[in-house]
Order: sequence, then C-alpha cells, then structure tokens
Amino acid sequence: AACSATGMMESAIRCAPPGRILALVNGAFSERFAHIATMCGRDVDRYEVAWGQTHAVPQLEDRLAARKYSAVTVAHSETSTGALNDVHALSNAAHRYGVMCIIDSVSGLGGAELLFDEWKLDFVLTGSQKAFALPPGLGFAVASPAFVEQARGIGNRGVYFDIVELDAYARKNQTPSTPAVSLMYALEAQLTDIAAEGIEARWERHRAMAARVQQWIDTTSKNLRTDLANIAPMGAQSPTVSTIRLPAAGRGEEFLAAVAERGIRIGGGYGKLKSSTFRIGHMGDHTTETIDRCLAACASALSV
Amino acid sequence: AACSATGMMESAIRCAPPGRILALVNGAFSERFAHIATMCGRDVDRYEVAWGQTHAVPQLEDRLAARKYSAVTVAHSETSTGALNDVHALSNAAHRYGVMCIIDSVSGLGGAELLFDEWKLDFVLTGSQKAFALPPGLGFAVASPAFVEQARGIGNRGVYFDIVELDAYARKNQTPSTPAVSLMYALEAQLTDIAAEGIEARWERHRAMAARVQQWIDTTSKNLRTDLANIAPMGAQSPTVSTIRLPAAGRGEEFLAAVAERGIRIGGGYGKLKSSTFRIGHMGDHTTETIDRCLAACASALSV
Repeated sequence: AACSATGMMESAIRCAPPGRILALVNGAFSERFAHIATMCGRDVDRYEVAWGQTHAVPQLEDRLAARKYSAVTVAHSETSTGALNDVHALSNAAHRYGVMCIIDSVSGLGGAELLFDEWKLDFVLTGSQKAFALPPGLGFAVASPAFVEQARGIGNRGVYFDIVELDAYARKNQTPSTPAVSLMYALEAQLTDIAAEGIEARWERHRAMAARVQQWIDTTSKNLRTDLANIAPMGAQSPTVSTIRLPAAGRGEEFLAAVAERGIRIGGGYGKLKSSTFRIGHMGDHTTETIDRCLAACASALSV
Repeated sequence: AACSATGMMESAIRCAPPGRILALVNGAFSERFAHIATMCGRDVDRYEVAWGQTHAVPQLEDRLAARKYSAVTVAHSETSTGALNDVHALSNAAHRYGVMCIIDSVSGLGGAELLFDEWKLDFVLTGSQKAFALPPGLGFAVASPAFVEQARGIGNRGVYFDIVELDAYARKNQTPSTPAVSLMYALEAQLTDIAAEGIEARWERHRAMAARVQQWIDTTSKNLRTDLANIAPMGAQSPTVSTIRLPAAGRGEEFLAAVAERGIRIGGGYGKLKSSTFRIGHMGDHTTETIDRCLAACASALSV
C-alpha cells in the first residue's frame, strides 16, 4: 500500500484475531507496535526486555501459558537497537499456543534471512526505505491464507488497511486505491536487481557487513583504548543495523556532527538511546567497501 | 500522509464525532465514503441522488431535522461524474444542525474554488495526483481546530490516520511516520508553481477549460448530429473533470481505444458509467490549448 511501514503495522492490528495482544518490546519500534494496538482499541500486555536484548522462547511460553492471547507482535530487526529476534522460534512458540504471530521486519526484510512459507509465518510487514533501498512511501505486507481468512470476520477493520481487500486486489495485480505509481517503478527496478543478486547472496552480503562493523568495534576499542560496544550481544545482532554505545555518554549529536564533517551521514541514536549511541545502517545497496569508508570516518571522529 | 486520498477519507471517519453519519452520495467516490464509514463501524444513512446530480440544501436540512447525525460526508467534485457540489452551502446547512461536514475534494482542491477558513469548514481532504498534478502517493487533509479538539476524545482512532497526532507533528513541521520524501520534493516544486500562478488565476484557468469542454459538447453534438451530453447539468459542472455520455451506450471502451489511436489518453467512465460515458480531466497543468488537442482527437474518433 501507499504508506509507511507504520501503516502496515496498523493493518496487522486492525485485521488480527479479536482478543488480547501480547507485544514483545525491546526497542522504540516494538514499543510503537504496542502503542498502535492500544490506539486501535486492543487490550495489550507487554513482554519487555532491555533495549538491545532479544526475546526468549521459554519466557514467551510462560506468558502464553498464563493468559489467553489472540496475537503476538514482535520486531525481527529492531531498527532502534540493531537486535535481531529469532522470529522463526518465537513464531513456532506462539503457534504451540494457537496464537498468531505478527512480525515487524521493517529493517530486516531483504537483508536478514526470513522464509515466510517454510517457517509457516502469519503476517510479516516492511517498508520500502530500509533494506530494499528504495525511497520511502511504500509499505509491504504478506499474510498467510489463514490470516486473511480469519480477517474476514473482523469488524471495524476499515478499508485502507483491510488485508482482505488488499489480498483480493493483489490477486488481480491491482491495488484497491490509487497506487504510488512513481515508487512502483522504482520497486520494479530494485526487485530486478535483487533477483539478479539472489536473495541468499544478499543475506550473505548483509552478514558480512555486520561482521565488518563488529570487527571494527573490537579493534577500534582496543586501538583507541576506549569502550565502544554494540548494544546487542553477539548472536543477537541484526545484519542490517548496528547500534553502538559511545564511550562518553551524552555526546551523540556532537559525534554525528564530527562524522558529517568527514563527509558521511550516520544514524543518530533513537528514542531514549539518542545521546548515548549512534547507528550504522549497513543495508540495501551498501557493501563492505562503502561501510569501510563510513567506519574510517567514525574512527577519525573518535580519535581527535 | 503517505497514502492515497482514500486514506484521508478513513482519517476523517476514524476521527469524526461519535454517532450516526449521513453520507451524501452522487457517484462512485461519495458511495466509497459511505462504505468506508460502514467498514469503520459507523451507522450510516445515505442521502442519494442520481449520478451526475448534486445535493440540495433543503433536502439535506429535511434529513438533518428528522434524525440526529454526528457528521455529514460530501464530495466536492465527484471524480466519477464531474458534478460539483456547493460545499459552502451544504456545510452551512450542516452547521445549522450542529453537525460537522467532511468534504472529499480529491479532484477539486487546487482546481475548484474552496476557502477553508472563510467558509468555516471542518475537514477537507484531497490527493496529490488530481488538480495538484503530482505523482500519486500523498494524501492531504486540513481540519479545523474544533475538529482536532473533538478528535482527542475519540476512542479506537488508531495511529496512522490520527488527525491529533498528524496535527501535532505538522506544527513541528514533521510527520509522525516516515514521509514519502521523493514525493515531498515534487510537492514543494509544484506548490512554488501554484503560488506563482496565483490560486485565483488557477481557478479561473480551470473554469475556462471546463467551459471549453462544454462548448465543444454543444458544437460537436450539432455538427455530428449526435447527442453527446455532459451528465452534470449546467451550474453543477466541476471545473476539473467532465463526464460525457456517449451517443451509443455500451461503446465506451471502443471509443477510448479510438481516441488513444490518435495519441491522446482520456479517462474511461467509472463504475456503473463505465461503458456509457468517457471522462476528460481538464485539471492540474493542463491549459485550454492542451484540452483543445484532446477535444480534436475525440471529435475525430466520433466522426468516423
């Protein structure tokens, strides 16, 4: 649909099975998902872990066993922290309790491995401007036939984000309302490039970029005798974005400006991490070579 | 917001005062507005007139006197029929009954006169791809302070189309979710051009284009001894779009193809008028000169 990814989050909630929602929160965007569910009139419980951490299957199962939920929301790659949730395992856990699992993969899809059919997922959403490397303005969602089927019975789900209508038109290769045509042309070009690269090769390139950033954090910390740190622990790091804690907390904006002076724009910390972290988006059309230029600018800004 | 105009219709409904809605229906898009209200869980009554006709103040007042409504929806320029409603008078009538009036001006705004403040309107919405002559993908809405104020109390209004949040961010010159940046640049360029032309001159240019089309209908009917007719009567014709009934009903698509062979793409009839009418969009960056070329192609296609 012509919208930001937030729109597809609202679509997921408006069309989710009726009942209480369990929101897995580990950063600003998974928190936003919980907020959207509340603003759509849902009762929401939170399974919250520290920003930068990921969610564990046993703890999720404890919550699912203790109370009846209709759906779980989870962030695949939390864009605010660079933490990567094991959505395959979390989705399987939800299914063991008969609960649908809605996955926000805004910065994940197209960069981090995700197998919708093989993993038997219910609903995955993303936006155009992250690992797809397109201009913003398009939101994407894929829903299982079972999700669409149950949505038919949901009242008050509106029109613009109605997954039933979106699905019906998609089958005719159309959209229910006027599409953002100029962005669709960009999408077509980018999908052609993605197919040419191959999705597995694309995932591998993203893993390599993330590894390069982590390696840089280690060596730079050693070389500069400072304590840079990825806020997501090893094994839980997104291949598309790294959120890095600065040695001197509260100097975030100053650091961004120093890097910008060196000709590179990096991401600031997000939300409550704004002044204590910075973010490197190693995704989309980036390569280890372009990331190296970014890391060199960061090292230079740190060493003065 | 990054959406089609349909999204802003949903915004108007989700944020409208609680209660029954009276939908003024005179074509496919005002019918769509009624449908959206129903799908958002509202009780909806219709004040319906034939496609091509407009709504009358006394009949509206009869309905407002007979039953309590919270809001009225109305199409300014019905894009499916080219009928132009007197939204100033209809809005005044609604206000006499203490009812808010929500105006779909998708093909109107930027081409047909509308004075939000002077006419004391409540909510007006449009899209980027009609009289603004931009690529599709942006929806626009303007709401009165009173509309925004009452919206704060509305439950279940969601996030993406929440006029309260959109208003709060607009005051900071920001958007609540990722904006469609490439389209915003196009918007900036087009608004500069519109300001240079002057909005009154722009309205006048659109009136001149509509007059030229009506004149062409009259002379072509006479010259070809056929009965072309604007389905909207004089005095109720939109300055931006004319829907013209073909002499031979059921030949709509054939006629479009014949015009296309002459290098011009015109609009087909919409919905139940698909095969019996065609539409000329005389709006945006068009001029009487470009419209003349279009009319010449139509005349040529008709005369074979």
